[in-house]
Amino acid sequence: MSHNSFGHLLRVTTWGESHGPAIGCVVDGCPPGIALSEADIQPFLDKRRPGTSRFTTQRREPDEVRILSGVFEGRTTGTPISLMIENVDQRSKDYSDVAKAYRPGHADYAYDAKYGFRDYRGGGRSSARETAMRVAAGAVARKIIPQVSITAWTAELGGDAAESFDAAQIAANPFFAADANAATRWEQLVDGARKSGSSLGSIVACEATGVPAGWGAPLYAKLDASLAAAMMSINAVKGVEIGDGFEAARLSGEANADPMRPGANGPEFTANHAGGIAGGIATGQPVTARIAFKPTSSILTPVDTITPDGEATQIATKGRHDPCVGIRGVPVVEAMMALVLADQYLLHRAQCGG
Amino acid sequence: MSHNSFGHLLRVTTWGESHGPAIGCVVDGCPPGIALSEADIQPFLDKRRPGTSRFTTQRREPDEVRILSGVFEGRTTGTPISLMIENVDQRSKDYSDVAKAYRPGHADYAYDAKYGFRDYRGGGRSSARETAMRVAAGAVARKIIPQVSITAWTAELGGDAAESFDAAQIAANPFFAADANAATRWEQLVDGARKSGSSLGSIVACEATGVPAGWGAPLYAKLDASLAAAMMSINAVKGVEIGDGFEAARLSGEANADPMRPGANGPEFTANHAGGIAGGIATGQPVTARIAFKPTSSILTPVDTITPDGEATQIATKGRHDPCVGIRGVPVVEAMMALVLADQYLLHRAQCGG
Amino acid sequence: MSHNSFGHLLRVTTWGESHGPAIGCVVDGCPPGIALSEADIQPFLDKRRPGTSRFTTQRREPDEVRILSGVFEGRTTGTPISLMIENVDQRSKDYSDVAKAYRPGHADYAYDAKYGFRDYRGGGRSSARETAMRVAAGAVARKIIPQVSITAWTAELGGDAAESFDAAQIAANPFFAADANAATRWEQLVDGARKSGSSLGSIVACEATGVPAGWGAPLYAKLDASLAAAMMSINAVKGVEIGDGFEAARLSGEANADPMRPGANGPEFTANHAGGIAGGIATGQPVTARIAFKPTSSILTPVDTITPDGEATQIATKGRHDPCVGIRGVPVVEAMMALVLADQYLLHRAQCGG
Amino acid sequence: MSHNSFGHLLRVTTWGESHGPAIGCVVDGCPPGIALSEADIQPFLDKRRPGTSRFTTQRREPDEVRILSGVFEGRTTGTPISLMIENVDQRSKDYSDVAKAYRPGHADYAYDAKYGFRDYRGGGRSSARETAMRVAAGAVARKIIPQVSITAWTAELGGDAAESFDAAQIAANPFFAADANAATRWEQLVDGARKSGSSLGSIVACEATGVPAGWGAPLYAKLDASLAAAMMSINAVKGVEIGDGFEAARLSGEANADPMRPGANGPEFTANHAGGIAGGIATGQPVTARIAFKPTSSILTPVDTITPDGEATQIATKGRHDPCVGIRGVPVVEAMMALVLADQYLLHRAQCGG
Repeated sequence: MSHNSFGHLLRVTTWGESHGPAIGCVVDGCPPGIALSEADIQPFLDKRRPGTSRFTTQRREPDEVRILSGVFEGRTTGTPISLMIENVDQRSKDYSDVAKAYRPGHADYAYDAKYGFRDYRGGGRSSARETAMRVAAGAVARKIIPQVSITAWTAELGGDAAESFDAAQIAANPFFAADANAATRWEQLVDGARKSGSSLGSIVACEATGVPAGWGAPLYAKLDASLAAAMMSINAVKGVEIGDGFEAARLSGEANADPMRPGANGPEFTANHAGGIAGGIATGQPVTARIAFKPTSSILTPVDTITPDGEATQIATKGRHDPCVGIRGVPVVEAMMALVLADQYLLHRAQCGG
Repeated sequence: MSHNSFGHLLRVTTWGESHGPAIGCVVDGCPPGIALSEADIQPFLDKRRPGTSRFTTQRREPDEVRILSGVFEGRTTGTPISLMIENVDQRSKDYSDVAKAYRPGHADYAYDAKYGFRDYRGGGRSSARETAMRVAAGAVARKIIPQVSITAWTAELGGDAAESFDAAQIAANPFFAADANAATRWEQLVDGARKSGSSLGSIVACEATGVPAGWGAPLYAKLDASLAAAMMSINAVKGVEIGDGFEAARLSGEANADPMRPGANGPEFTANHAGGIAGGIATGQPVTARIAFKPTSSILTPVDTITPDGEATQIATKGRHDPCVGIRGVPVVEAMMALVLADQYLLHRAQCGG
Repeated sequence: MSHNSFGHLLRVTTWGESHGPAIGCVVDGCPPGIALSEADIQPFLDKRRPGTSRFTTQRREPDEVRILSGVFEGRTTGTPISLMIENVDQRSKDYSDVAKAYRPGHADYAYDAKYGFRDYRGGGRSSARETAMRVAAGAVARKIIPQVSITAWTAELGGDAAESFDAAQIAANPFFAADANAATRWEQLVDGARKSGSSLGSIVACEATGVPAGWGAPLYAKLDASLAAAMMSINAVKGVEIGDGFEAARLSGEANADPMRPGANGPEFTANHAGGIAGGIATGQPVTARIAFKPTSSILTPVDTITPDGEATQIATKGRHDPCVGIRGVPVVEAMMALVLADQYLLHRAQCGG
Repeated sequence: MSHNSFGHLLRVTTWGESHGPAIGCVVDGCPPGIALSEADIQPFLDKRRPGTSRFTTQRREPDEVRILSGVFEGRTTGTPISLMIENVDQRSKDYSDVAKAYRPGHADYAYDAKYGFRDYRGGGRSSARETAMRVAAGAVARKIIPQVSITAWTAELGGDAAESFDAAQIAANPFFAADANAATRWEQLVDGARKSGSSLGSIVACEATGVPAGWGAPLYAKLDASLAAAMMSINAVKGVEIGDGFEAARLSGEANADPMRPGANGPEFTANHAGGIAGGIATGQPVTARIAFKPTSSILTPVDTITPDGEATQIATKGRHDPCVGIRGVPVVEAMMALVLADQYLLHRAQCGG
C-alpha cells in the first residue's frame, strides 16, 4: 500500500531526494543465506552512474553503495537490507529558475498541485536519481533468482531503430546498443540534440531467460501486469509492451499463435509472440518487454510556462541533464525486471511450493 | 497483496470461473452515503454482455447483477459491497478437446505448469468472463467520482485504424467505433475473420476528463503505473501507452513539451503529449491511454500443440468465442480506468485532504 | 489494506450484513490440489450455529455453506474460493427501537459517527453473524496445514474459572467447557443471566499443536502480533494473551524462562510460559492464547442512552441474543488461529522454502 | 505485506540490527506541509534512551536521529521520511556465549529454526534496539494528529501495582510511574533484581484523549485490532487489553455498559469500560489499553539450554541488559499508539472525508 514501496513479498521501499544528503532503499523479504556484499551491487550501479560519457548528465556521483543491515558474515539474514548512497555532487547552484516556473513535461506543477509545495532542488523526489536505488535493489533480486538471466538494450533512439542484435555489443558502446552500426549513428544523434539544447527519446527492450513456466499469478498479480506497473513507474516511461505488444493487435489469430511441440526438456514453442507470458503466468519461454522513454523534459530551448502564481513566462532548463534519459534507463529496466521476477518467484513458492 | 484483488483503498476482489455457478466481486472501501442500486450497474454490464451482435461470442448470458451487501435504503453504508452474477448459459458441451490439449496462446499450459491441474471448462478462471465483475465494480467506482467522465472506444481493429473521432458514434455501432466509416469497414473484417475461423486484434483508446490536478502518487503508486497494471491485467492485453506512448519516444524534447499558459480557470496546456500525467500525478488535463488487445487465441484453424502428457497433436477450438476479444474489452477498459481513478481519489484525500 | 480482508498470503475477504440476503467470503491464495468440499466446512459451522441450545440466541439459521468457485473436481484450483451462506431467519420484526436509540456497548453510535448512517437491522455489518464466514474460511485454512491441530475451549465464564482440563469434555457440553463440573455450574449461571435479562462474559483458551519451529516473521508480521489482531477483531473481544500473558509480567526472569533440553526429536522445553512464540517466531512448542469476551451488550435491562438526535432516552434490547456471546466465540477463535497459522505457513515457505 | 513495515496509509518500515552500523526507518504517507525537524523527534528518543539511570541497560547510545529525506525548508513534503540513528556503543565484546548456546526466552533458537543462522551480536534484529525507530516514527505520527494527546505509564512492576494516578509524576521518576509511592517501592524491586541477576516484568497503561468518534474501521482494520497487533509486536509483550480487558469478561452486561447522556459538546458517557472503542471504531471517549511485558529474558542466573548442535549446556547472559525491559517500553507503547491513531485518521479521511 505504501506509495514508495514496490513488490508483494520481495518488497523495496525507496527514499531520498536528488539534493538531499543521501538516497536509499530497504529491501524486505529477501530469503536468508544468500551471499551478498557491496561488490554484488556496485557493478550495476556503475552501469547506470552519471557522468561516464558525454552522452549522459555531467553530474559526478560515485554512487558508492553501503549495506547497512540484513547481512551478517557475508550472507543475507532474512531481515531487511538497508542500502544507502550518499549524494556527493549536489552543485550549490541557484535553483531559483526552477523554483519560480514550472518546467513543462516535468512533475513540478503536478507536485505543487498535489502537495502545495515541492522540493525544487534538482527535481526533488521526482528526479531520476531515485532509480539508482532500483538498480541497487535489482542487484539483490538477481541473487535470489540466479537461474534467470536478464538483459536490456536500447532498441531505438530518437526514432532510429537498431537493425541487428549482437548481445556482445551492448557493453561496448555508451548507448547499450546491441547493434554497432546503430551505436555509431546514435552518437551523432545525441551529440546533435545535446548541442542544440534538445533531447531525444528511446525504446528499451528487455529479455529474461530461464524463467520457469508457472511463475506469475492471476489475476491482479499477473506477471505482465506487475511488469507493466514496474516499468511504467520508471521516470519518463510512457509505454510498455509484452512480447509483440501493439503489433500483436495487427496479427491474425493464426499468425499470433505460439504453436507448441514436444521437446527434449519439456514443451517447446515455435514462436514467442506472447513474450513468455500467458494468462499472467510464465510459459517457460523468454519473457520479453519493450519500454518507451520520452525525451528528457529538461531542455535548453525556452518553452512557454507559468509561475506558481499563475503568471505567463518562459523557461529554459540549464543545469546538467541527460540528453536522452532512456540511455541510463537500460540498467533500470533490467533492475525492475529482476525485482518483479524475484517477487513472483517467492509468490509462486508460497502458494505452490518448491 | 491478494492475487485476486485490485486497488489500494477502493479494493476489488473478484471470484468465479467461466462455468461455475456464479461469478462475483467484493468492492471494499467505498465511501458511505452514495446512492447505489443495480440500475446503476446494469447498463455497463449490458454494454459488455455477450451475444448482442454477431460480432461477439454467441454465449447468451443475461448478466443480471445482484447487490448482496453494503447498501441500505438505497445508499452505500461504507461496508463491503458484494456483487454477484449467476452463470446461466454454461453449455453442457464436451470439453474433452480442451482438457486433452493446450490451446496455443491460451493460459491452459501455464495454469497446468503452475497449479498442476486446471478447471478447463471454458477457460475456468482465465476466461474473459471474469471481466464482467470488473465492469460491475467500475460502475460503483464511477459513482464515487461523478466529476470524472470516462470514455473508451476502438481506435484500430485488425490493423485498420479509425480516421476520425465522433463520440456520438461510439454507441451507434457494435464495435464502439468513434468513426462511422471505420465501423462499416470493420463489419467486413470481423465477418471475414469469423467465417474463416480466424480472429483479430484491436487497439482501444480511453480518455478521462475532469480528473483534478494532484491525483496520483509517486513513486510506486503512480497514476500511470496503476493504470498500466490495471490495463495489462485485462485478458488479451499486450501493451499499454499513456498519452503519446511509444510515439513520444520518437519526438524531440521541444515537440514533446506540453507548454503551459495562464487560463481563466487555472493553468492551461497547449498540448497533451503526456496524457494528463507527469511524475505519476495528474496535471488536470485529460488522462489518455491506449491499450493493445491481441487476437482471440481460440480459433478454428488447427494449430500445433501438445497434450498434458507431452504428446504432439493439433487443436482447433470450436466453442463460442469472440472473433475480436478487444471489442468487448472497451467497457472493461473504461471500468479499469474508473477503478484506478476512484482509488487514487481516495488515496489523495487520505494524504492531502479535501 | 482492505478493511474487510485478513491475512498476508492466505487472504480472506468477508462481506454481508446480519439481515441482508446472504453473507459470504472469498478465500484467496489457497494452494492448489487440496481436497475440499462443503462437507469439510459444514461441521465447523454447525459448532458455531445459533439456536442449538437454550444458552445461545434462538435465531434459527441452518448456515448451509456453498462453495461457488475455486474448487474443481473436488480439489482447490489455486484460484479464489467463494463461500456463501444465505440468511434465512431474518425475522421481520420492528427494528425501530434500535433505529431510534443507540445501544450502549454496541457499535451503533460509532457507526453513525463514522458513516453518517447505519444498517440497524440486527446490527448490520457489526453483527457477530459475520463470524460465520471466519469459521468457514478457517475450515479451509485447516486443510492447508493438516499437521497442525487446533483446539479452543471456554476457560472461564461469568468470572467462574474451570478447574480441570479434559479435552474429551469440550464437545460434550453446550459451553465448550473442558471441565464437566464447570459446565454444570455454568448452566445455572447462564440460565440466571438469561432469565434476568442480563449477560455474561467469558475467557476462551486456544492451543495449536504441531506448529513447526520457524513459522512467524519479525517484526510487524510476528506470529503473536498477527494472532493478537486476529483475535481482537472478533466481536466482543477486549483482551488477548499469548502464553502466560499478563501473568508473565508478574514472574521473575528465572521463573518465566522456558529451559531447553536435547530431545529425541529435536529440542525440548521444560516449560511453555512463552506460549510457543519467541521473537514473533514459533519455537515448536504448542502455541497458546487466551481471549477475553465481554458480556453481550444487548441486554433486557434498560440502560441510559441517547437518540441519533441527541435526546436522552433508555433502551432495553429485546430481540434474540446470546446471553454469553463468548460461547459461540470458541469455534471463531479456532478459526482465526487456523487462518493465522496457514497464512504464516505460506509466508514462511515463500521466504525460506519448503 | 512487508514483514518489517507497519500501518495501512502511514506506513513505517524499520531496518537495522543491534550491532550493525546504524538503525533506521522510512515513514511513508505522511501528509505534506507539517513542520518537522529533528527537535520534534529527539525528546521522545531521549525518554527511551538507554543508560539514563541505573535501572536500565548501561549501553551508552546518544541515539541522535537524522532526517535524511522527506522534509524541505522545515516542512514535510509528502514524500518518504528517512530517519537514521548511528549505533555508537556496540561494545566489541565476545559474543561467543550467545553464538554457542540459545538463551531461553530469547528469539535465538526461533531465528535459527527459521533462517538457518542468525546475527547473534546483541540479539541482531530481535533486539529491542529496533524500538528506537518506533519511537522516532511515533514522534512524526504525533505531528499528524496534534488534536490527540497520548500518555503511557507503568501501572504495575514486578507484580506490585501502582495505587494512585498523578500524571505529573510520570516524568519525575525513572519508572514512568504515575504514583510516587510506587516509584519508591519499585526502586528497591529493580535494584534487587539487578543485583541478584534476575529480571522483572511490568504492565504499561496507555491513554489517548482527543480521538474523535468515527476513527477506526471494521472489520479487519479495527482500531482495537490494529492496536493489539501494534502492541504485541513490541519486544517482550505477551498481552494486550483494551478498556477493561480481561476484567470485562467478569462483569455482567449491565455493569459493563457505558451509558450515554446528552452533553454540551455531543454525547457523554458515564463510564468507559470499552476503552473508547466499539465495533472497532472510536466512540470519542479516551482510548485506553494495557500491555503486559514479560521479564527480560537475559538474566545472570544460569539456565538449562542447548547449543546449536543440540548439546545440553547452561547459559548465563552477561552483557548489558535492562533488568525490567518494560520500563523503556513506556515511550514505545506511546509511539505505537500514535502510529495506529495517525494511520486510522488517514484511513478515515480517505473513506469518509474531512
